[in-house]
Parts: sequence; C-alpha cells; structure tokens
Amino acid sequence: SEPIRATLFPGDGIGPEIAESVKHVFNAAQVPIEWEEHFVGDKVDPRTESFLTWESLESVRRNGVGLKGPMATPIGKGHRSLNLTLRKELGLYANVRPCYSLPGYKTRYDDVNLVTIRENTEGEYSGLEHQVVRGVVESLKIITRQASLRVAEYAFHYAKANGRQRVSAIHKANIMRKTDGLFLKCCREVAEKYPEITYEEVIIDNCCMMLVKNPSLFDVLVMPNLYGDIISDLCAGLIGGLGLTPSCNIGEGGIALAEAVHGSAPDIAGKNLSNPTALLLSSVMMLRHLKLTDKADQIHNAILNTISEGKYRTVDLGGNSSTTDFTKAVCDHL
Amino acid sequence: SEPIRATLFPGDGIGPEIAESVKHVFNAAQVPIEWEEHFVGDKVDPRTESFLTWESLESVRRNGVGLKGPMATPIGKGHRSLNLTLRKELGLYANVRPCYSLPGYKTRYDDVNLVTIRENTEGEYSGLEHQVVRGVVESLKIITRQASLRVAEYAFHYAKANGRQRVSAIHKANIMRKTDGLFLKCCREVAEKYPEITYEEVIIDNCCMMLVKNPSLFDVLVMPNLYGDIISDLCAGLIGGLGLTPSCNIGEGGIALAEAVHGSAPDIAGKNLSNPTALLLSSVMMLRHLKLTDKADQIHNAILNTISEGKYRTVDLGGNSSTTDFTKAVCDHL
Ligand SMILES: CC(C)[C@H](C(=O)O)[C@@H](O)C(=O)O
Ligand SMILES: CC(C)[C@H](C(=O)O)[C@@H](O)C(=O)O
Repeated sequence: SEPIRATLFPGDGIGPEIAESVKHVFNAAQVPIEWEEHFVGDKVDPRTESFLTWESLESVRRNGVGLKGPMATPIGKGHRSLNLTLRKELGLYANVRPCYSLPGYKTRYDDVNLVTIRENTEGEYSGLEHQVVRGVVESLKIITRQASLRVAEYAFHYAKANGRQRVSAIHKANIMRKTDGLFLKCCREVAEKYPEITYEEVIIDNCCMMLVKNPSLFDVLVMPNLYGDIISDLCAGLIGGLGLTPSCNIGEGGIALAEAVHGSAPDIAGKNLSNPTALLLSSVMMLRHLKLTDKADQIHNAILNTISEGKYRTVDLGGNSSTTDFTKAVCDHL
Repeated sequence: SEPIRATLFPGDGIGPEIAESVKHVFNAAQVPIEWEEHFVGDKVDPRTESFLTWESLESVRRNGVGLKGPMATPIGKGHRSLNLTLRKELGLYANVRPCYSLPGYKTRYDDVNLVTIRENTEGEYSGLEHQVVRGVVESLKIITRQASLRVAEYAFHYAKANGRQRVSAIHKANIMRKTDGLFLKCCREVAEKYPEITYEEVIIDNCCMMLVKNPSLFDVLVMPNLYGDIISDLCAGLIGGLGLTPSCNIGEGGIALAEAVHGSAPDIAGKNLSNPTALLLSSVMMLRHLKLTDKADQIHNAILNTISEGKYRTVDLGGNSSTTDFTKAVCDHL
C-alpha cells in the first residue's frame, strides 16, 4: 500500500537531532510514513506574517498530520511567534498532553496518569491589550461558545475513545463568572451527551493543590488556554519535565500536529546530547491518530522499556548516553 | 503597658472553634492583646455592599491589625463576596504566605521554604466582564503601575527584612506583553534599589514545573493576582495543604489582616474536629507584624513542636486529636 505522507518540522537547536532519532526509529519499525520536511524560513513570509513559509503550512493541511520539534522564534518586530502562528493558521484548537509516571524514571510521584486538554486558540492569548491611561494597561481574555464547545467535545470524545472515566473542567468561574462561566456552560452541555463519563468542575487554585498532593485524583482535564498552559507544565513537572512529555495538537478539519513542547536547548545543540523522548512519544501520538496502532504500541513499548531498563539515559536524566546511543537502544527494543 | 487592640473575625463554620484555639494560646502565652470580636452580619450593609458590617471594617482600620477565620459568602444577589470586600475596602494589596515544610509532617517534599507575595487588588479580579455578542464574552485584566510598584516594594522590603536572598517575579509577559510587561517593569524598578537581593523573572508555566520538581530553587515570589492565587495554593499543597499554611494581608496605611485561607468546612463545624494550625500560624504573623517577636517565636515553636512530636494530630492530618486537645498540647509546649 501507498506510504502515508506526513509533514516534519525538525525545528531549531536540538530539533534536527531529535527528529533524526524519530526517523531512525520509524525506519527500524518499518512505519509506512514518508516525511515531507519543512524548515523555518530565514525571512518573514507575508502570507503567514512569520518565518514559517506558506508552503510548510500547506503541507500540514494537505497531509493532515505532522510532527514538530522545538522552534525558537527569532527576536525582532514585524513577525509573529512561530508556535502561535501554527496554532492560528492551522486552527489547532486542542493541545492534548498525556502525562504518566514512567516506570524506571523516579520522581516524587509514581501515581500520575492523566491527560490535559488545553483550549489553544483564545482566552488570555487573544493578543488584545492596550494602555487605558499612563500606568494603567488592560488585556482582554476572550471566551467563545464555539471554541469552548469544540474543545469540550474533543475532551469527552478523547475520554471515551481512550477508556477514561472522568473529565474535570478547570476554571475560575467564581471570579470570572462570564468568561469561565461560559466555558463551564459549554462543558456541561457536552457532558450531558456522555452519561458514561463522570463530569466535575474544579477551581484552578484547588486543582493545582490537589495535583501536587494527589495527582491520581485526576483523569482527563479540560480547560481554557492559560490554565492549560500552566497545568500542563505543572503535570509535566510531576513526571520529570518537558523532556519526557508528548503532546499533540488537534486542528480544524481533523489535522493533528504532534509536538515536543520543550525548548530548543541551543547550548547543547549539535552535540549529540539531547533527549529525543518527548519527540518520540509525540510521534507515537501521531501514529495513534493515523490508527497505526500496532506501530504506535511497538514504538511506545520500546521507548518505555529503554527508559525503565535504565542502561541508556541521556544527560538531562542523569545518564551519559548520547542521543544516537539512546536511539539505537530504542531500535534494539523494537 | 496598655494592651494592644486587634480585630478578630472568627468567621463561619469551623471559624469560631479555631479562633477559640488562638484565644487560648494567646492567654497561655500572656500575649498583651485585647480582641475586638466582629461577626459577619445577617443582612447586607449598604455601606460595604456585603454582609460585612461597616463597624467591623472600621475596627480593623482603627486597630491596624486583625485576624480572620474562614468566611463563606452567602449565595444570592445584591452583595459582594466577603473576602473580596475586605480586600477592596481595606486596600489589602499584598497577600503574604510563607510556606515551609513542617518537621514531622511528611509530604513528598521536605525542602520547601519560600514565601509567595500576591498582588491582591487588581489583575484578573477586576470584575469587568461583558458579552460582546452572543457566544462571545470577555474579561478585562487590569494592571496598574501603582499597584504593581506597591506590591513589588513590599516584596523586596519583606525579603530584606527577613534575610531572604532572592525575589522572583512570576509572569506571562511573553503573551501578555503589556499587562504582565508593566508588572515586570515595576518589579525591575524596585529591584534596582535592592542590589543585595537577587532578582529574576520566571514565566508562570515554567515556575509551576520548577516548583513541583525542585521548590528549593525559590525564595520570595511576587506576582499578579491570579498567578498568586494559583501558585500560593500549589505551594500549600507541597507542604500538606491550606490547613497548615498561614497568610497575612498587608493593606493601605500599614494595616495587617492575618487570615487562615482554608474553607469553613461546614461538615465538621462545631464537632471539635478542626485543625487550628493555619489560624494559629497566621496569628503568629500578626504578632510579628506588631513586633511582638518573642511572643511570636514562642508560639511558633510551640506549634511546630506539637506537630513534629506527632502525638496530637487532628483528623485532617491522619490523627484523632480534637481541636481542644491539640490546642492544649500547644499551650503545654509554650
Ligand atoms: C512559548 C509560549 C508562547 C507557549 C505558550 O504559552 O503557549 C509555551 O509555553 C507552550 O506551552 O507551548
Ligand atoms: C474564594 C476566592 C474568591 C479566593 C480568591 O480567588 O482569591 C480564594 O481562592 C483565595 O485565594 O483567597
């Protein structure tokens, strides 16, 4: 059968090395994917208002799936953040991050198994801000019924499809009655359609306290943009950090752009020292999206087994393996 | 010498029991304080637009110091939240919460020793929200130079007065460039005046990740209202929850209103089961504010020794002591 085409953004810094790792593992596992590689441009593309080329966005739209390494937005005026441009232009409305304790990688927590689903297009990220008078500035948080329903639908759909029992909507509607209130109203509407899934509402401050005390209380969490930004990183911290947590963005028309959310780590770039785990686990999410379940399981297990065996560990995890050694170990575990 | 007058709001639910505990301990320690007790009214006072009486606010203003138990705002229209009314009417601009691992009370963390300082009057708590069109609502976040400078000044002053080395300003100025940008600008201005204190800026998502991985990286944290709400509860979670964390609000004209920030726990109210620790530790903050340092140290040590001894522990901490037993143990440790 024809190979499936997928867009690959290796990204900056350590991006190319960890993307190379994914390509190796996919080859070793004989995943029927053909990559269309796209690089961040060296000048602003007026059609995207950023250093991302129009062609690269078209590639994701055409393929419907992609994988993305870290992208550092160049400093300067007259262009948009690369990450925010991708979210806007591809309508990436939900950022999905499964977060589970990795057997063999010890942190203070061994009981994390949850998924954060973050609204990714509006809220505090509206970009609408202005000075009222000197010394008084304001930012607008926008919540719409459309975006809230969309991400709530996705969260319940995800919960059901993945055998999860409970969806918690995270909010601060006791203070932001109208905006977070609308978000909750939409979640409740969707919850009605999923009687088999327990629905609850948790205030964000209390949620963060419960997460650090007892993360096993949570299953699927859905929330507006900024709370998702905060809580997804908090949860990543519980299991060891962004180097270990996969993510996938769901966009308009069923697009899926899997993404390593850690930084580009320019200090170690090109030194064969980076940890490809987050991008590898993200690529597994892409495979699941494509319903290549066997390949996804195979690679997922190989990654987890390599980590739990503990023989090959990159520098960030206290080991001294190189990126290529770790990658080879994953391939050997396939 | 004349006793010092201080306002006491026992509050609702378990409030009266834990306030009783403080009164006992203060008597046993011969603290020269005379309480002016004020209760939440049973009808809306038009001068406060809430169930708080004007007289009770006047009492805090006159005395300059107060202690407050939990207050549950009655449900209904036509009145303001009790907590928000206190913050507004008394200009309580900084909420200060020291957060440290308690010897003898084991959590996943034994290395927490930090102080969160939360701007308490503006930001996301502006109360300004409206519907733009059907299905589209917005909330305004307001940041002012005045309130930001004031809380930043307090944070650096506090750091210096308490021998702390570092102040971290928590923000999301990469997204909210103008509002959080102004907050940071004010922090930087104040930092200039304190060359002996290290100043750093940490993005909130990264801050939460670092807090759960390694809280000992932090010393004093200062931040806008909502981030403070979130992070102060997260930090409380690290050391065992709101039942163990004191807080004090600093207001206009040097007012200090110490406060237990946990809920009123109506389910166990009146059963002599509640944990008075948060209110006791808050009362110690009030004593420090009054420069009654010896009394503060004495009571503080008695509380910590009672907890670390582990013989008397209330139900919330897995023990079976009553409120009065625990209180008596604290008095015995004086
Ligand atoms: C880099 C930044 C704009 C971004 C965000 O705030 O969304 C990041 O924190 C993330 O979570 O992807
Ligand atoms: C009860 C609520 C309005 C309040 C807040 O959000 O400030 C509480 O969470 C707090 O931290 O005191």
